[in-house]
Order: sequence, then C-alpha cells, then structure tokens
Amino acid sequence: VTAATAHTAGRMHSRASATVGMVGGGQLARMTYQAALTLGVDLRILAAESDDAVAEPGLAPQAGSPTDLETLRSLARSCDVLTFDHELVPTKHLEVLQREGCVLRPGPKALRVAQDKLHARVLMSRAGFPVPEFKAALSVGELVERADAWGWPIVVKERLGGYDGGGIAIVERDELLGFAAGPGWFAEQQVEIERELSQLIARSPSGEVVAYPLTESVQVDGICVETSTPAPVSPELTAKCRELALSLAETIDAVGVMALELFLTRDGALLVNEIALRPHNTGHYTIEACETSQFENHLRAVLDWPLGSTAMKAPAAVMANVLGSGDANPADALQAALRVPGAHPHLYGKQPRNHRKLGHVTALGPSLEQARETSRRSADILTGGSR
Amino acid sequence: VTAATAHTAGRMHSRASATVGMVGGGQLARMTYQAALTLGVDLRILAAESDDAVAEPGLAPQAGSPTDLETLRSLARSCDVLTFDHELVPTKHLEVLQREGCVLRPGPKALRVAQDKLHARVLMSRAGFPVPEFKAALSVGELVERADAWGWPIVVKERLGGYDGGGIAIVERDELLGFAAGPGWFAEQQVEIERELSQLIARSPSGEVVAYPLTESVQVDGICVETSTPAPVSPELTAKCRELALSLAETIDAVGVMALELFLTRDGALLVNEIALRPHNTGHYTIEACETSQFENHLRAVLDWPLGSTAMKAPAAVMANVLGSGDANPADALQAALRVPGAHPHLYGKQPRNHRKLGHVTALGPSLEQARETSRRSADILTGGSR
Repeated sequence: VTAATAHTAGRMHSRASATVGMVGGGQLARMTYQAALTLGVDLRILAAESDDAVAEPGLAPQAGSPTDLETLRSLARSCDVLTFDHELVPTKHLEVLQREGCVLRPGPKALRVAQDKLHARVLMSRAGFPVPEFKAALSVGELVERADAWGWPIVVKERLGGYDGGGIAIVERDELLGFAAGPGWFAEQQVEIERELSQLIARSPSGEVVAYPLTESVQVDGICVETSTPAPVSPELTAKCRELALSLAETIDAVGVMALELFLTRDGALLVNEIALRPHNTGHYTIEACETSQFENHLRAVLDWPLGSTAMKAPAAVMANVLGSGDANPADALQAALRVPGAHPHLYGKQPRNHRKLGHVTALGPSLEQARETSRRSADILTGGSR
Repeated sequence: VTAATAHTAGRMHSRASATVGMVGGGQLARMTYQAALTLGVDLRILAAESDDAVAEPGLAPQAGSPTDLETLRSLARSCDVLTFDHELVPTKHLEVLQREGCVLRPGPKALRVAQDKLHARVLMSRAGFPVPEFKAALSVGELVERADAWGWPIVVKERLGGYDGGGIAIVERDELLGFAAGPGWFAEQQVEIERELSQLIARSPSGEVVAYPLTESVQVDGICVETSTPAPVSPELTAKCRELALSLAETIDAVGVMALELFLTRDGALLVNEIALRPHNTGHYTIEACETSQFENHLRAVLDWPLGSTAMKAPAAVMANVLGSGDANPADALQAALRVPGAHPHLYGKQPRNHRKLGHVTALGPSLEQARETSRRSADILTGGSR
C-alpha cells in the first residue's frame, strides 16, 4: 500500500524528468536513488523481503519477488526504463517483457552474460577475449584429464548466482570425487594472480560510452575489501584494460554501467574474470572522487541521456568496504569513524551479519598510500577493528 | 498512512545511526535526505501540502502543518533530534517542546534570530555587529524624520516570513504615507551594495565549528540567481567575514549550518544582512565542490557528531539557480542541460511557477569565469534560455 500510493502519486504529474524501475533493493539501489534525487528521476525500486538497504529510510520500495513475471511486468509498464541492481532476474521473463514492448536496459541478451558465468566464458572465448582455461564439467574422468594438464588445484564455479565468494571452490585432485559438481557448475584453471583489476564504463543505447579510471581491487575469500584508483599499473596495461572493456561492451551490447573484472597474472597476462552489468562495488569511490558518479551515469546511460565526465577530482582514491562482523552494528561506531579526517563513511542501513557488506569508506588523497591509510582507519573502526 | 507505516517500520530496529526529524519539505530537506542516506540516518520529513520537493520520489514525508503543536510534538518525540528546513515554525511551540525535553537544534532562541529580522537587527546591533541603520516603525512622522537623515529611498521590511524577495520594499518619501507598514514591519537605510557575500559555517552543540569558503551571491529582485566560491575579494575581507560568522554563531548559540549574508558596501563597509539557521542556497555548490556538503555537515552538527572538512576539491565553483519561467518544466530540457561538459544539474521535482527555485546547476573549474560559463550555460537551457 505504501509503495502503491507513492507510485500512483508520482504518475499523476509529469514533473519527474523520467521514471526508472530498478529491480533489487540493495545498496546499489540505495545509492542509485541518491543520484535519482539529483536528476529529478522518479526511481521505483522493487525490493524483496531480504533487501533491506532501501527499507529503512522510507524510500517506498515496492515489495515483490524479482523472479515473478507479473511483478516485473507491472513495474516495467509503469516506467520509462527497467534496470537492475543484481543479476537474479530470470532472462526468460525479461525476454517476454521485451517482446511485449517494455524497455529493459541492459537487455536480456547482455544480462545473460552477467548471470551465467559459463555462458560468459564461452562467448568471450569465441570472440577472442582472453579468459582462463575452462571446461564445462561433463564427467569426472574428462575433468581430471583436463585438470591434470592445467595442474591442481582447479577452480570449480557455479554458473548462476555466485556472489561475494559464494558459488566458487578451489578443489584438489583427491577432493574432486567428493565434490558434487554437476551441470550447474564448470571448472577452470587456477591462475596465479598478481593483481585484480576492474574497468568500469558506462554505455548508452545510442552507443555513447565513457570509461572510468582503472581500479585495483583487493579480494579476501572472494569478497572485495578495498579498491585503489587509479590502479598502480603501467599506462600500457591501463590502456589495454580500457580497450578490452570498450570492445567487450560493444560485443555484448552492454547498456548502463558495466564492470569488467580482470586478473593480471604473475606472468603478466590479462584475463577476463567476471562481468557485471550494473553499478559495481569497485565504483563506489566515484561518488566522492569523480566528476560524475557511477550511479548517476548508470541512470543517464539507461535513459539514453548524455553521459557525464569520469574525470577524477583528486590524484588518488581508496575505498574500503565495511564487512559485517557478527551482529555488531557499524552505526554504533559511526561517530568515531567520522572523526578520521578525510574519511567519507557510507552506511547502508542493513541488518548486520558476518561478511555482509554493510557500508564503505572512501578517502581521496595526494597518493594511494595516504588515501588508503585514511579509509582503512575509518573502515576498521566501523567494523569494530576486527580486521 | 504511508508516512506512519514507514516511520513505524523505522523505529522497530536500531540499524539507523540516528533518527532526525526535519520540519519542512523543500529542496533543502530533499538534499538533506540524500546526505542522510549516506550516513545511515533515518530522516523523517514533515511536509506541508505545498512542500512538493520531497513529494515525488516517495521519500515518505509525514504530511502536516509546521505550525501545529501536536504535529510537531509527535515528530519531535519520535526522533533523536528535530531540525528545520525553513523558518516558519512558531517559536512558542518550540519553547513548549524544549521544556518537555525534546531536542531541538537549533533551539528556539537561536531560531528567533533567523525568523524575526527586527529582533536580529536589535540583537546584533547591541552585540556590536555591523548592521545597516534601522528603525522599528513607530509612527510615520518619526520614520520620515529618521529617513530624511538616512536619505531616500529607504528599505521597508517585513519582520517575519520574508523569502526570495518577498516582504521587502524600496520606498520613496512620497510613497510612505500610502505604504501600509505597521508593527510587523521596520525600516532601514538603503545601503549602496558593491557585493553580497555569504559565510556558511556548521556548528555543533559541543562547540565544534567549521567554516566554508566565503561565497559571493548575485541577487536579482531579492532572489539569488548565482553564487561564486571562493568570493573574489581580498584575504583580509575573507578573514573578516569568517570571524564575524564565528563570533555571531557563538553569540546566538547557532547549531547546525548557519548562513550569514553580508553586504559589502560601495565605501568598503561590511554589514550583516540576514542570518539563516539551516542549509542555504548559497551552499548548494558544496555538494560537488567541498569535501563535505553543507547537508551532511548540518546532520553531523545537529547530531553533535564530528564535523567534516569544508576544503574545496577544485579552485572555483559557481552555482546557478534554475528559476521558474511560467509553467515550463526544466525536466523537459534536462538532456540538453546535461550535454554541457562539466555541468551538474539538480532538479527538485517541484511544480513549475514563475520565479520559483526549481533546481540549480553547479560547475567546478580552474577559474570562476570558466565555472560560471559552464553553469550559466546549462542553467539557461533548463530555464528555457529566458534569462
């Protein structure tokens, strides 16, 4: 009732510059909402019961499941454009809505690349993008044969739904028989990672595209704990990542923000890891550090509006995630975290839970070292100094 | 029902870092809401029917009159702190609530200075702050006598409620008899204005205070059309404005953001014009240009949290207001306005009306000239190029 009232009210006049539906009510929707307020965009959020980042401050999310066709149809029909803060929407539903004339950005074809990791590997490999050696798990015998050539251990990945280190396992030869991999899984060679890099771009349906500076991310147990921008790598490598992302975005017809996550291996190779077609954790720093945040550019891109400059306002920016530690609430430590000069803490209003992303802290600085020191100090206070 | 549901839900858990009530639902509340989302603050907005800047995007404002004691009491009791986006709340109600133990920031004593322009003049004059010559209008005869000494025309001002050029008149000697000034009005000497300046500070109840860079504002018919930061005046004058604001804030026990509007006269004198005890139009540029926006620092200040740095991220920032021109909706021109490189348009989602503040555009730049060119160009597109 709450949501319906608010949304009806919104539709009764045409003062909003546009109406955008966003499926998913996590912190990405929350921060996109902040950008929507700036642009006068009426952002309607579809949130599941468990999506609590938009629940608290009364953003009037519409409650409903992202896997229910009727719910999606109703939202899509009330909006100029439907977009997404996660990859959990069934593409079959989106194909139906697209046939019915709803505007989905990105579209189902592009979204499948972000949803199905095996599909992405196959597509990228065929298009000539560098990816780790991979194999759909047909039989244990075949897999062992392949993996003996790669070298053990290998990486076994869930095709769909993996997130923040879930749906992925490092498996030794003698563990493989006990490992319940099936058609929902595939295997790939474990690469020796020197750095993990993330190239964000924003692309509009009419083909306008802007690239953010290259970011390095530090992952622990598959969860991003920190990002550094610009990534401390050579100009040649930076240019290569940018070209890869621009080329890939065109190949898959990405619309909105796209994050291309890359491995730089110990022997200097660049391999595509994952692709996200939405604002991304590695782009949170853009709120303070860039002329236009990834959230504003996502909205501008899906609306086919002119894109904003991605130039940085400071030489360096480091973002540190605030991860849950038991049921400790980072909000209780906010005053202390704000006392760190130059730190910009963000809290998402989510229920604390182990390893859950509850907030982040960005700091700008004259160098990555100084920005890291500031953001790390503030984020550690928010997580209770537990890391 | 909308508001009540959302607010009850908010009270049922303690994930929010704090709960702040804000009386008034204009663009200041809208932008404060954006800052509240960053800090995880549960901001509850009390909006009158006519306050439409927070209506559209479903910010779940509580509907109610800012002059009704019971409405104010109910909001104040559900929040850690009650604060304000306008000056229209009767101080007598606030005095009652304060006696009842509600936390009001700023408090009624300070608010009276922002509400009652004659009270402000008297108080400042007694405390030794430079103000224009003024006189409460006792009788026409007395006033004429005084004004003959000042020189005609004189300025006649409404004590309460004047805003954006309303409640003020420039009156010649032969118009005075026909002018219906009474106890709600007072008169002052018209000064020859060289520049109008605005000094923003944020001050917490425990006395921590930060000052923003000095801003110049350009007013047309009493409405701010543009601000330039830093104000192009001497370091000595800049320092003097800062000292005046800090001293005044202490004198009146300001809490939250305070904007001190000053006249620099043609003969080089600095005179206090008006005082606002809330985020202010002359501080909108802080969203993009400063380490911490005025909206975030207002929340941090009223919550007695550590204040954030006011340092600028660029050498210069110019903000141009988007004023209503007939019923033209600036949202219709947003795409064109976004096409201006470096322009940051903000739209408030308000019903278009002549001279109404419907949005603003901020631009950063290496110089005021360049920032002005950018923001002016984008804002002119939004207002339909009518200025």
